[in-house]
This record gives sequence, C-alpha cells and structure tokens, in this order.
Amino acid sequence: MMHQTTPPVIAIMTDFGAGDGDVGVMKGVIAGIAPEAHLIDLTHEIAPQHVQSAAWILSSAYQYFPTMSVFLCVVDPGVGSARQAIALHAGNWFFVGPDNGLFSYVMAEQPVHMAVQLTNPAFQMPRVSSTFHGRDIFAPAAAHLAHLGAQALPQFGSALAPDSLVRLSAGQASREGSSIHGQIIHVDNFGNLITNIPLGMVPDLYTMPLPRLTFLKGQQVVDQRRRFFADGEEDGRAFLYGDSSGYVGVAVRNGSAARTLGAGYGSPFILHTDA
Amino acid sequence: MMHQTTPPVIAIMTDFGAGDGDVGVMKGVIAGIAPEAHLIDLTHEIAPQHVQSAAWILSSAYQYFPTMSVFLCVVDPGVGSARQAIALHAGNWFFVGPDNGLFSYVMAEQPVHMAVQLTNPAFQMPRVSSTFHGRDIFAPAAAHLAHLGAQALPQFGSALAPDSLVRLSAGQASREGSSIHGQIIHVDNFGNLITNIPLGMVPDLYTMPLPRLTFLKGQQVVDQRRRFFADGEEDGRAFLYGDSSGYVGVAVRNGSAARTLGAGYGSPFILHTDA
Amino acid sequence: MMHQTTPPVIAIMTDFGAGDGDVGVMKGVIAGIAPEAHLIDLTHEIAPQHVQSAAWILSSAYQYFPTMSVFLCVVDPGVGSARQAIALHAGNWFFVGPDNGLFSYVMAEQPVHMAVQLTNPAFQMPRVSSTFHGRDIFAPAAAHLAHLGAQALPQFGSALAPDSLVRLSAGQASREGSSIHGQIIHVDNFGNLITNIPLGMVPDLYTMPLPRLTFLKGQQVVDQRRRFFADGEEDGRAFLYGDSSGYVGVAVRNGSAARTLGAGYGSPFILHTDA
Repeated sequence: MMHQTTPPVIAIMTDFGAGDGDVGVMKGVIAGIAPEAHLIDLTHEIAPQHVQSAAWILSSAYQYFPTMSVFLCVVDPGVGSARQAIALHAGNWFFVGPDNGLFSYVMAEQPVHMAVQLTNPAFQMPRVSSTFHGRDIFAPAAAHLAHLGAQALPQFGSALAPDSLVRLSAGQASREGSSIHGQIIHVDNFGNLITNIPLGMVPDLYTMPLPRLTFLKGQQVVDQRRRFFADGEEDGRAFLYGDSSGYVGVAVRNGSAARTLGAGYGSPFILHTDA
Repeated sequence: MMHQTTPPVIAIMTDFGAGDGDVGVMKGVIAGIAPEAHLIDLTHEIAPQHVQSAAWILSSAYQYFPTMSVFLCVVDPGVGSARQAIALHAGNWFFVGPDNGLFSYVMAEQPVHMAVQLTNPAFQMPRVSSTFHGRDIFAPAAAHLAHLGAQALPQFGSALAPDSLVRLSAGQASREGSSIHGQIIHVDNFGNLITNIPLGMVPDLYTMPLPRLTFLKGQQVVDQRRRFFADGEEDGRAFLYGDSSGYVGVAVRNGSAARTLGAGYGSPFILHTDA
Repeated sequence: MMHQTTPPVIAIMTDFGAGDGDVGVMKGVIAGIAPEAHLIDLTHEIAPQHVQSAAWILSSAYQYFPTMSVFLCVVDPGVGSARQAIALHAGNWFFVGPDNGLFSYVMAEQPVHMAVQLTNPAFQMPRVSSTFHGRDIFAPAAAHLAHLGAQALPQFGSALAPDSLVRLSAGQASREGSSIHGQIIHVDNFGNLITNIPLGMVPDLYTMPLPRLTFLKGQQVVDQRRRFFADGEEDGRAFLYGDSSGYVGVAVRNGSAARTLGAGYGSPFILHTDA
C-alpha cells in the first residue's frame, strides 16, 4: 500500500460513450479494489475504436495530471484477439490499456521505465469475458496498481521490452523547403482544427511574414493569423493560431472552422511559410 | 453513522442527459448530506423515460459494485403522480427510486430483504417540488442512507411488501422446439444489438451447428458466429456473439449492427438452433 | 489550509463538451493542487459560448450545493482578450470564471462580499496560454481557493468593485396590464420550455382563470395547465406548469414541447392572465 497522504488518481479514457453504463461498471470495479482512488474522466467520447485520436488526446493531457497518476485507457478494437494487455511506467505516470498504439505519443515523449504484460489472474476479474476487457482486465489492473503503488508493477506479469510495443506512425508534419506538409489530427468541441505541426516547429508563427495554409482537397486557403479567439474582427474568416495543446490550430471566431472549411480529421494540407 | 474504513458508494442513473445541470444539482444535495460518499455515474443517457432500458442497464451493472453500494435511479415518467418513492435492500445492495419497474430485473435476481416507502420528511428537501423528485426526495434519501447505513432504512418510511412492488414483464425470450423467440432489449454505444436470450439459455452457442437469427421485420438473417469482435474477416457481415452483459448479442466488426441490419430496441426475431 | 472535516466541493460548468478531454485536464490540474477536493460536474454541455444559458443554469443550481462550495465556470468567448478573470464571494458560495456576465443572476440574488481579479501568478499555471484559461488560470484559482479557504481570497489579486462587474440584462419578463411579455430562457433535456416568468410573479398560477400563453412567431397557443407531468390525459397537448427551477414552464406529457410547438431558446411570447 502506498504511504501517501493524497489519494491516488486514476484518469479514465474510453470510446464507450456515456450511454451504456460501461464506464460506470468499470468505476464500480475500481471502487471495490481501490476505494481511496480519485477517479477522473478524461473523456469517453473518443470516436469508436479511433486509436489515433485517443493517443493524441492522451498525449495532450497527461502532463497536467499529478505524478504517479494512473491512466486507464480502453480504446480497443482488438479486444479478445492476440493483442497484449499492458501496463507502462513512463515518465512520472502509469498507463494501462491494450498494446495497440494508444501510448505511442506518450512513449515518444517520456522514458519507459517498465512495461509489463497483464497476465496475472490475481489482478483480473475471476471470470474474464472476451469482449469487455475494460471491466475484466484493465480496470482491475489500474485499481490494484493505484492501490499498491509502483513497486507492485512487476507482479502484474512478465516484463516486455519497450521497443517491442506497438507504435503508431507518429504522423508528425514534415518540412520540405519553406513548405510544411501535414494533416488535421483533431477536431475539438468548438470545431477548431488541430494540425500535426508542433508549435516548436514554427517558433516564428507570430513573427514570420504571413503564413498560408492550403487544404489539398477543395483548395481552401487560410491566410489569417491571430493570437487568441477574440482577437480581430468577427468576419467569419478562418485563421491560424497556437493551440493550447502545443500544436498549430485553425479556427473561426464564434464559429466552426471544420464546418466553414469542410475539413476534418485526416484532412491533408500544405503550410507555406515563404509568404 | 456507518463505522467503515471505506467511503460509501452512491451510483447514479437517470435519463436527465448531461446538459441541464440536474445531475449536478442532485450531487450538490448529496454532498451536503453525505460529503464522504463516493459518487459514480452509471449513466444519464437513458432514453427519456424509458424505464425498461434503465432496468436492463441497472441489472447488467449492479453486481460489479461494492456490496452496500446505494443505487440512486431516477427514470420517472410518473413524477408527481401517485406512484410511490421507494428504497430497497436487495441482495447486498441498496436501491432508491420510483416504484415503476426500474428494479424488476434486480428483484428477479436478488432476495429483497426490505422495501420502504420514502415518506419521512426528515430525509427529504424542506420543500418538495412536483416535478423534480430526483433532487427533492431521491437524492436526499440515497445520501442519508449512505451516510447512516443499512440499519437506518426502517426510519425512512413504512415497510412495503416486496410482492406489492411494480414489476415489468420480464421480457425474456421463449423457446419453442428448436426455435427461440426474442427481441432486442438494448443497443449499445457501438451499435451492437443485445438480445433477451441469456447465455445460460444457449450454453452450446459456440458448439451447436451454426445457429441462424432472423429478424421478423425485413427478414434480415444473421448466420455468422464469433467469439470476439476481432475474430475472423472484416467483411461487414453481422455475427452472433456472447455479450459481456450475459446475453446473446449481434455485432458487425468495426461497424454498427443496428445500422447494418436496420434493427433496434424492441426488434423481434427468431433464433433457429437446428441449423 | 481550511480546518474542516468535510472535503471542499468544486462544481464545474463549461461549454467544452465531453469529447476533448479539456475538462479532464482541468480536473488533473485541480487534483495536483487540492487533492482533497470533491469535484462535481454541473454540466459541460452549455451551448458553445452561450453565456446567458450558462448564467441561468448556474442560478438555478448553486443554492443546492453546500455552503463554501467553489463554482468553476468557464464559458468564455473572450478568452485571451481584455476581459477580466475573477473570483467572487457571493452569499455563502465562491465563483471563479471570466467577467462576462456568467454570474449576473447569482449577483442579483446574493450579496457580493468580495470580488478580486485573478492576477497573482502564484495561483496560475507557470505558462499561461492565450486560448485555454480554464486550464491555466481558472482551474488553479478554484483549486487554491478550495484548498486555502475563504480567507485567502485577497491574495489572488486586487479587489474589484462589485458594481464594476459585467452583468447581463436580466431578461426577466415584464407585466403590461393583465399580460406578461416574456421569452424562453432554457430548453431542458426533455424538451420542456422554461420561461423567464418567476413563479413568484404568478403566485396564482394554479388558481387564476385559465391562463393562455401565445408564442409571437407561429401564434401557437398553450391553454392547458397541470401540476405535474403525469397529471391529466396523454393527449399530446402542451401545458403550463411550475418548473422545479422556480419559473413557469411549458411541457408536453411524454413528449417534447420544443418540438411540438417549434419553439426554443429566445422564443418570445405573451401570457394572458385575464382568461
């Protein structure tokens, strides 16, 4: 048992939606194992089985959580198949879920201290279904890990080489001369389009001669730039900005850039930085 | 006050949706009465006033919660009318809500140790509205019950005979020779169709000659069978499987069976088990 | 640190939706500062950037929360602009958010004991983005306030004169002879239409000769009246009732008044009380 004065945090991310009670059932399982844990919903509205979107949201979120938080992530189109169930200790956080690329972006940013396969039945439900590992394997594992603490991790199953884990092609934008080729990797609740261009790739976003982003389908051009949403006229024109996630975004003031531009997840574009 | 080392769990299920703040208000009321309680959302996306769907989700969930958990359930089309407000001690759990059938499936599975009518104004809001008993009667009752513990239950109001409580017609599938007549009782977030055939009714689901499910409207036939979602080809064909809820389900890999088959809640079918 | 035996409550209201993980990130930030806090979601489904709707939901909810609760409210179309970030001590509660009118209705009902501008960087994230003040300014402020208690409020920034704060035009209905001119200020999850007529303005709602509400567009007339939803026939006709929020509402039994009447947020009407 961890000797700590603050309750352990378990942050939960799934593509289960809010309607079926499945997230509630996972929390019920956790409450029976780690009643002291503080449960936080990251989101349950990942597009069904959209591992890449889940990986991106997780990577934009985990660093804001207390160290030692456990992230319980269940976006799992391969449930029941041979894909492994894993737990990671990466950076100062723990991650529990399927080995399908969900943790790719976290692993690109943080050293993986340990990875184990979740095979120890002592940390699973007595009867494991073939279709709901969130309830039967992942929630119990996250709860036991939060309850017992980091030093218990080797008990969960055999160690895995970090290099052997599934990783998504990072999907980061690439520079060609003065152009950057990229795609939209997230559409947020306001219809803002988040690109795969890290702000660190364009440190001069606000000082370079006006950059120009062209969507390859439809040839829509974004040639405005703003520091915040309420900056400038409410003219319905889309503009570039530095999103709080750490990536270049495209927005429309008091509107939806996704709708205005007819763009969405995966839309390819070229950002011209030569004015 | 309960002498326990772990906080009591109150699991909440409503058809209020997430938009109006009504669930938040109920939690505010609970926090004022039982600040130590651990609140877990089961779901708030029950189809408005759909008691049968709520009863099913509750029955598939409650056994995964710690013993002594209190289930606060408000799907209540009869709010303000003569329907009774009740609290139950059934099996190792407690249930608070309207007496309209919500607890039918739980009562079919668990012995009812005690049922009371929630009439004691000491456990209600000072002013009880005629339209929001979730806030004014049920949330305070669940909070006081969690705070005071099981032995306080008789104080909440007069005892009711369990046999007098409203029960939904169970709606379980029926066998006729080698055919099973049933209907869809739940559509989950992925579009999987859950039937009212318990897995215990077809213990040979995976060993019998290939079963064949025919929807009575549209005559769509499901004649595939799989052990888990990622099993077999991604060919867009619907298949039978054993759902984690304990019932036979119909799914499409990486797709929605509901959309593919044009079926939904209540759709009747015949399952032929004679190949 | 507050010397209290019960954990402080932080109630959270945003227009972020549940999909992006932004609410989860705010909770992660809070858990790092005030791990003992009890977090309650009021709602995150405010129509994007709809300050008036958020102000109304807040005003119908806050009185049901324990005294000393902190309301963290982020509906903030002006994020990054010159609008102030504020914290209020009003009545027995605390409110943190942008100074854009969100707290208008609360301030109309409760004395404002103190208002401060959130400028002290000690109570902000080390790096403040220009687009996500919920994470970088408001969540840390609410967490520190819950953790340190009311007496810490002056440390958060310079005091503001309550009179200087932004207030929405109250939008309350007005009486002209026997007629009341008003508008719909909220549509709830069931499609019930909530008017801006406080029940205190029509204390004789259930005893006056039958009142008649006419929508100015479409001329739909509501001339039925009921005490609760299950009262009377299920005839699909809309009726007036006293909503649990404390305002006159319009409903259809087991249906949506919004859809039946083609009315919604902002729809103007006249209520004739002269039979």
